[in-house]
Formats: sequence, structure tokens, C-alpha cells
Amino acid sequence: MLFQVEMTVKLPVDMPADKAADIKATEKAYSQELQRSGKWRHLWRVAGSYSNVSIFDVEDNAELQELVSNLPLFPYMEISVKPLCRHPSSVREDDS
Amino acid sequence: MLFQVEMTVKLPVDMPADKAADIKATEKAYSQELQRSGKWRHLWRVAGSYSNVSIFDVEDNAELQELVSNLPLFPYMEISVKPLCRHPSSVREDDS
Amino acid sequence: MLFQVEMTVKLPVDMPADKAADIKATEKAYSQELQRSGKWRHLWRVAGSYSNVSIFDVEDNAELQELVSNLPLFPYMEISVKPLCRHPSSVREDDS
Amino acid sequence: MLFQVEMTVKLPVDMPADKAADIKATEKAYSQELQRSGKWRHLWRVAGSYSNVSIFDVEDNAELQELVSNLPLFPYMEISVKPLCRHPSSVREDDS
Amino acid sequence: MLFQVEMTVKLPVDMPADKAADIKATEKAYSQELQRSGKWRHLWRVAGSYSNVSIFDVEDNAELQELVSNLPLFPYMEISVKPLCRHPSSVREDDS
Amino acid sequence: MLFQVEMTVKLPVDMPADKAADIKATEKAYSQELQRSGKWRHLWRVAGSYSNVSIFDVEDNAELQELVSNLPLFPYMEISVKPLCRHPSSVREDDS
Amino acid sequence: MLFQVEMTVKLPVDMPADKAADIKATEKAYSQELQRSGKWRHLWRVAGSYSNVSIFDVEDNAELQELVSNLPLFPYMEISVKPLCRHPSSVREDDS
Amino acid sequence: MLFQVEMTVKLPVDMPADKAADIKATEKAYSQELQRSGKWRHLWRVAGSYSNVSIFDVEDNAELQELVSNLPLFPYMEISVKPLCRHPSSVREDDS
Amino acid sequence: MLFQVEMTVKLPVDMPADKAADIKATEKAYSQELQRSGKWRHLWRVAGSYSNVSIFDVEDNAELQELVSNLPLFPYMEISVKPLCRHPSSVREDDS
Amino acid sequence: MLFQVEMTVKLPVDMPADKAADIKATEKAYSQELQRSGKWRHLWRVAGSYSNVSIFDVEDNAELQELVSNLPLFPYMEISVKPLCRHPSSVREDDS
Repeated sequence: MLFQVEMTVKLPVDMPADKAADIKATEKAYSQELQRSGKWRHLWRVAGSYSNVSIFDVEDNAELQELVSNLPLFPYMEISVKPLCRHPSSVREDDS
Repeated sequence: MLFQVEMTVKLPVDMPADKAADIKATEKAYSQELQRSGKWRHLWRVAGSYSNVSIFDVEDNAELQELVSNLPLFPYMEISVKPLCRHPSSVREDDS
Repeated sequence: MLFQVEMTVKLPVDMPADKAADIKATEKAYSQELQRSGKWRHLWRVAGSYSNVSIFDVEDNAELQELVSNLPLFPYMEISVKPLCRHPSSVREDDS
Repeated sequence: MLFQVEMTVKLPVDMPADKAADIKATEKAYSQELQRSGKWRHLWRVAGSYSNVSIFDVEDNAELQELVSNLPLFPYMEISVKPLCRHPSSVREDDS
Repeated sequence: MLFQVEMTVKLPVDMPADKAADIKATEKAYSQELQRSGKWRHLWRVAGSYSNVSIFDVEDNAELQELVSNLPLFPYMEISVKPLCRHPSSVREDDS
Repeated sequence: MLFQVEMTVKLPVDMPADKAADIKATEKAYSQELQRSGKWRHLWRVAGSYSNVSIFDVEDNAELQELVSNLPLFPYMEISVKPLCRHPSSVREDDS
Repeated sequence: MLFQVEMTVKLPVDMPADKAADIKATEKAYSQELQRSGKWRHLWRVAGSYSNVSIFDVEDNAELQELVSNLPLFPYMEISVKPLCRHPSSVREDDS
Repeated sequence: MLFQVEMTVKLPVDMPADKAADIKATEKAYSQELQRSGKWRHLWRVAGSYSNVSIFDVEDNAELQELVSNLPLFPYMEISVKPLCRHPSSVREDDS
Repeated sequence: MLFQVEMTVKLPVDMPADKAADIKATEKAYSQELQRSGKWRHLWRVAGSYSNVSIFDVEDNAELQELVSNLPLFPYMEISVKPLCRHPSSVREDDS
Repeated sequence: MLFQVEMTVKLPVDMPADKAADIKATEKAYSQELQRSGKWRHLWRVAGSYSNVSIFDVEDNAELQELVSNLPLFPYMEISVKPLCRHPSSVREDDS
């Protein structure tokens, strides 16, 4: 089941550089693990911003909450969520 | 080059049913042609709405304008556009 | 799986009274059928408005879309959707 | 008498971890006491966020104010309130 | 129990003058009956607008909904509602 | 001459408790003095918030500015102002 | 006593040209009468728009309401009002 | 050439009182110099706020930028700008 | 003197096709005349929309108002204006 | 390929003056290098603000992201992006 998730990172400007680097490295590893598992199906940068557009593929709302709330950057992000499903005009049989 | 395009359809409530059906049929054919050509890479319905989330793959801004402004439903939609590119944490080499 | 759905009805002020009555009667029957089936778990009026707050219990996003987009008042409503899940502080084992 | 209450937690990112843990533990106990008393009828997490959707069942506006303003997280939350009542299309006799 | 209700009238500019006059006359009579009963405790015009600020004194949310939704101008107004209660700094014992 | 004034208190979450208590005590005394003088005609709490709805009765705009800007909580509040006058449908002769 | 009033004209695009011309001529005469009387102290066009910024000098809120609600274009305008008074840094003794 | 400029002061609540007093004194002197030169034609307080409405009379956009960006409170203000010109219904020959 | 002007066209969906074509043709001719005169320095389409971003080079605010309010599409557009001037980091001596 | 980029600088008011000066100097050098290369085609100040309107000319979305995210002021700015292309009414053959 798909969700579009948009995330905008708002790190405090006075966060020490090494702390920021640590969080970002952990975030990257966590994100790549989810991408490889197929849970985080797409991840794009919005050009000219510190935002991304993502497509998550989860079992249900509870799993979405678990994955998103465990993002290392979760306390520093503005996040919006839209539930998605197959569009009747899609040329594909599934939701890809 | 990718763009996220979000479209919300606002058909006039007093549009004759057959005219609405005609426009929707033309829109569907046009959309499916673009999907098959690879220009309209993803098309999802936002659950609980008359909106979609789409990913377009175009040569440049001018082609995006050409494809979107020729949508049969273009005069009846609210549309927002975000330019996308590969995210540095993506596990893929390209922008898929 | 739960979704909060908020609906605000915006009937055209010049809609003939009998047409409006027809749509509302069909909406009521459809709503009550869904309530009895358990799909539309809660339905409350927002006091001082022509809006409701609803809780839907569906299989997945696709079923939410099917139920909501078939509402007889769907073309006349502003609708917002929030995916819900069990809260970690809830005293209940399930999502009720 | 019912109210829908939506709360979004905005803890300062530099709050010491043990202080945050203390507040959250107190909040959880307070919330569960109110849930057991029947005053806090429903409590759901909004998936992908640090927000909840709640239904309060109180005597009057003054009791709502008393319960909400005593939440341990009250100084750290954005809160919106909507008064609810039985919907004329509800299949139930009461406001459940 | 008190509610602040703000109403902004948006009559269609092409409504026939006599129909508008009829609705306004019925609205005035209905409003004055509620004011005399004590249910509509205060009614003020917002200067420079076609809006009012009102204070309703009702039994509960359901009565608020009944009174407001029966306003003859209800289909033509934007309405917002805030539940009120006695302020701890008020010099009065009651909510006046 | 009446004004509706809505105030929302936003105290810094790290303000020392005794400083906050001092400001609130001064605010309460100042508010009650104005209420007793008749300048601050009504003061209500908005249920579920740290906001109030107030009705001021002043000589002119300059007096409103003087009274509001001298509130001890003035630097910590979001404030909106609406000028009021007697409504043509009011059952009273004056603006009460 | 001064008020800043900002008005944006939204004439229906299908209003007959002669009706629009009539309303505008009446508006102009009414506006110029108020300007000459000193009630409408300043009137400026916002460049690139169908809006104006105005300064009214009235006895009280009730007179502001009377003058503004009698504008021939009143049903076709979005209007916002701000009460003004002498600024403590003004070099003038009065509110000019 | 006229511009309407609206400024809202947002001083940090923890700014030392003497530093705030210094900035305000410098601002006042700067403002009064510009008022006397005729560049800052009007300056009004918005009643019930820490905002002002101002009318600037400058040679061109560059001068507006120079005057406004040199305000001692510039780093602490939210500022909006509207270009103005003579209104066709004005009773005056110039833009006063 | 430069202004950025953003225009979004909102033609009524029921405007007869030939009337729309006439307006657009007149708009195009008018726009091209202003471009050739140097008054309308740049004109770009916003990709995926019926909007443009324009740079006007005018004598003063009054000329901006004259040029913009005479656009044949003026009654059908939402327009926003920003005054521009040379940026201190620009590599050019003038405002180009 | 063109993009309009609007940037508003929000430096922390407590940033040490020499640090701010350093960042601004680096920003200016970076900006001028991009302007000379033709990538940053136009740079204008919005009069009365700490904002600019810019036109970037880049190969694709990825280059836009690279250039913008490397701005020394990037962590301190609110940035909005609009993709542009040649307007059908432009008198020029290219996108200038």
C-alpha cells in the first residue's frame, strides 16, 4: 500500500557540524536499508531545496508510522503524507 | 528529467454528463499514450479525493509545459509542479 | 485500518430543492449502509457547520477511495483525509 | 458532550532527553487515567506524524478547558478543537 | 454554555432584490427571537464588513448546531465557532 | 466604542517559572483593574487553548492601543483586533 | 479617528458593461463627496491591481460601517480594515 | 513616488532592555529625520499591535530599498510593500 | 525602474471559444507591442501552468498601473507585483 | 533551461557580526562567479526586503540543485523555485 511522503529538513543552524554529520549518516544508512527492503520505493530530491518526495510501500498505516517516526531526522523535519492507490487511467495492472 | 505534478480536478457541477464523459475519455486516452511513451512515468490516485500524484519524465521545462497544457482537463484542474532530481541517499544510480 | 475523513458540503445555492433533497436522501441511505457494515465506524456533525468528522475502517487505501468517491455528495464536498493508527498511549489493545 | 481535539507535539529539539522522557511518561499516565474515566473517549495517532486525533466526552466547555490545559505536554503542543454532536444520518441513537 | 460565532454573509450578487430582502427579514426576526430568549446573548457588527461577532448561550453542542443551521442565511454564510468558558482572570463569578 | 480583541499567549518554554508567575500575576491585576473600570467589558477563555476572546470599550483607537500595548503579556502574545458596532438586528438600543 | 481600509474590486466578468459603468460612476461620485467632506482622507490606487489603499477619518466605528457599507461597490469588494492612531515616533502633533 | 509599507516589530523576548532601548531610540531618530525630509510622508500606529502603516515618497525603487534596509529595526521586522499611485477617483491633482 | 509581475489567467470555463480567442489575440498583440518598446522587458511561461513571470521596465508606479490595467486579460487574471532594483552583488552596473 | 528562484535571507539575529560578514562575502563571490559563467542570468533585489528574484540558466534540475544547495547562505534562506520556458507571446526566438 502506497503513501506519498514529503519531508523538509529544518536542522537548527547552530547544531554542531559533527552532530549534524552523525545524524545525516545514520539517516542515510536507515533510508538505504528501507529502500533495499522495498519499503521506501522511491526517493527524490526536490531541486533547489532541502526537501524530498518519497513513495513508501507499507503493510498498513501502523507500519508507515513506525518507519517514519524512526527516521533519525524525524524531530527536525516537516512531513506531509498522502495515501495513494492505483489510478483508473493507469496503464499498469498494479500500483507501480 | 523528472517533475512531480499534482493535479486536482474541479469540474463545474453543472457540466452536462455527456460532455464530462467525453473530456474524461479523451483525458484517459491522452494520459495512457503518454504513459506508454515513458513521458508520464507514474500516475497515482490520492485516496479520498479527485486528485492525482504524477511523475513526468521530460526533456526540459518546455516539454513539461507542452504535455501538461495539452491535457484535456487542463482548464478544469489546479496543478502544482516540483522539479525533481536524484537524491544523494538513493540506492539507485539513476533517478528511478 | 482507520482514516479520519472530514467533509464539508458546499451545495450550489441555486440547486433546485427537490434535486438537493434527492441527493441528500441517497447520501443518507449510502452512509447508513456503510455504517451498518462497519466500514464507516463513526459519523459526527461539527456543531455550527455543514461539516462532519468521520472515521472509516477499510481494508486499504483503494477501498477508502472507492467508498469516498462513490458518495452521492462527493462532487459537492471539500474532503480531507488523515491516516490513523493505534496510539502508543491508548488503553486499548486495538484501534477502537 | 463531544469535542474533536487534534494535538501536534513540538518539543524543543534541545530539551534534555530525561526531561522529555519525564514529561512523556507523565502525559501517558494522565492520558490513560482520562481514557479509563471515559472523558478521553478515543485516542489515535496520525500516521507519519507526531500528532494525534482525539475525541473528548465532557460535561461542558469548562471541563474541556480544564482537561486539556492540564496536559503535561500542553505548553509544547499546537491544539485545535471542534465541537461535535450526533449527525442526523447516524445509525445510532446516541453520539457514539 | 457559551460559543463565539463569527458569520460573514456572502449573498450571490445576482440574487433578486426581493428574494434577498425576504431572507434578510426572516433572518432578522429569527435572530431577534433568539436574542430575546437569551440564546443569542450578544450580536455585534464588525465595522467595515458584512460580518458579525456573536455570543451564543446554549445547552450543549447539539443546540448550537440546531440554532445555527436553522439561520435563514445559513446557506450563504461562512461561519466559525469557538467554545468559550469563564476566564480565570475574570472579575465575575459567572461567564457573563 | 467596542473592539473584539483575541489574544493567544506564547510564553517561551524556557522562561523561569517564577518569572512567568510574576508576569501572569501582574497581567491578572492589570486585567481586573480594566474590567472593573468598564474598559475591558468581557473576558472569556477559548476552551482547549491558551487564548482569550475579549471585548474592549474605549474612547477611541488611541486608547485601545494604550490599554493593549501596556498588557504585561503584550510581548508574548499574538493579538488580532476587530472594530465592532451595534448590529442593525440587535434587540438592544445600545451596543451591549 | 483613522482607519486604513484596503478594497479590492471583484466585478463579475459577465456583468453588462453599462451596469458596471453605472456602478462605477455612482461609486466615484460617492467617493469624491466623502473625500471633499474630509471623511475619506486619502485614496490611492495599488499599482498593477484593481485595489486601493484608503485612509478614513470618522467619528467612531459605527460611522466607518455606515460609510463603507454604503459604497455602491460594497457587494463586489473584498475589504480589510485596520484601526490607526498617532505613532509615538511621528513628527506631528496630530494623526496626519 | 509612493509606497505603502507595513512593518511589524518582532524583537527577541530575551533582548537586554538597554539594547532594545538603544535600537528604538536610533530608529526613532532615523524615522523622524526621514519624516522631516518628506521621504516618510505618513507614519501611523496600528491600534492594538506593534505594527505601523507608513507611506514613503521616494525617487524610485532603489531609494525605497536604501531607506528601508537602513532602518535600525530592519533585522527585527516583517515588512510588506505595495506600490501606490494616484487613484482615478481622487479629488486631488497629485498623489497626496 | 523594474517590477516583477506574475500573472495567472483564469478564464471562465464557459466563455465562448471565439470570444476567448479574440481576447488572447488582442492580448498577444498588446504584449508584443510593449515588449518591442522595451517596457515589457522579459516574458516567461511558468512550466505546467497558465501563468507567466514578467519583468516590466517603467517610468514609475503610475505607468505600471496604466500598462497592467490595460491588459485585455486584466479582468481575468490574478496578478502580483514586486518592485525590483539592482542587487548589490550583481556583476552589472545597471539593473539588467 | 530557466528557473525563477526567489530567496529570502533569515540570518539569526544573534549571529556574530564577523561571522555574518564572512558568509555574505563568500556568498557574494560565489554569486558573482555564477553570474559571470552565465548560470545565474539575472539577480535583482526586491525593494524593501532582504529578498532577491533570480533567473538561473542550467542544464537540468540536478544542476539547479547543485548550484542552489551550495549557496553559502542556503541554510539561512527560504527559497521557492518555478520552472520557466519561452512564452508563446514572446517577441524573441529564444528564452531571453
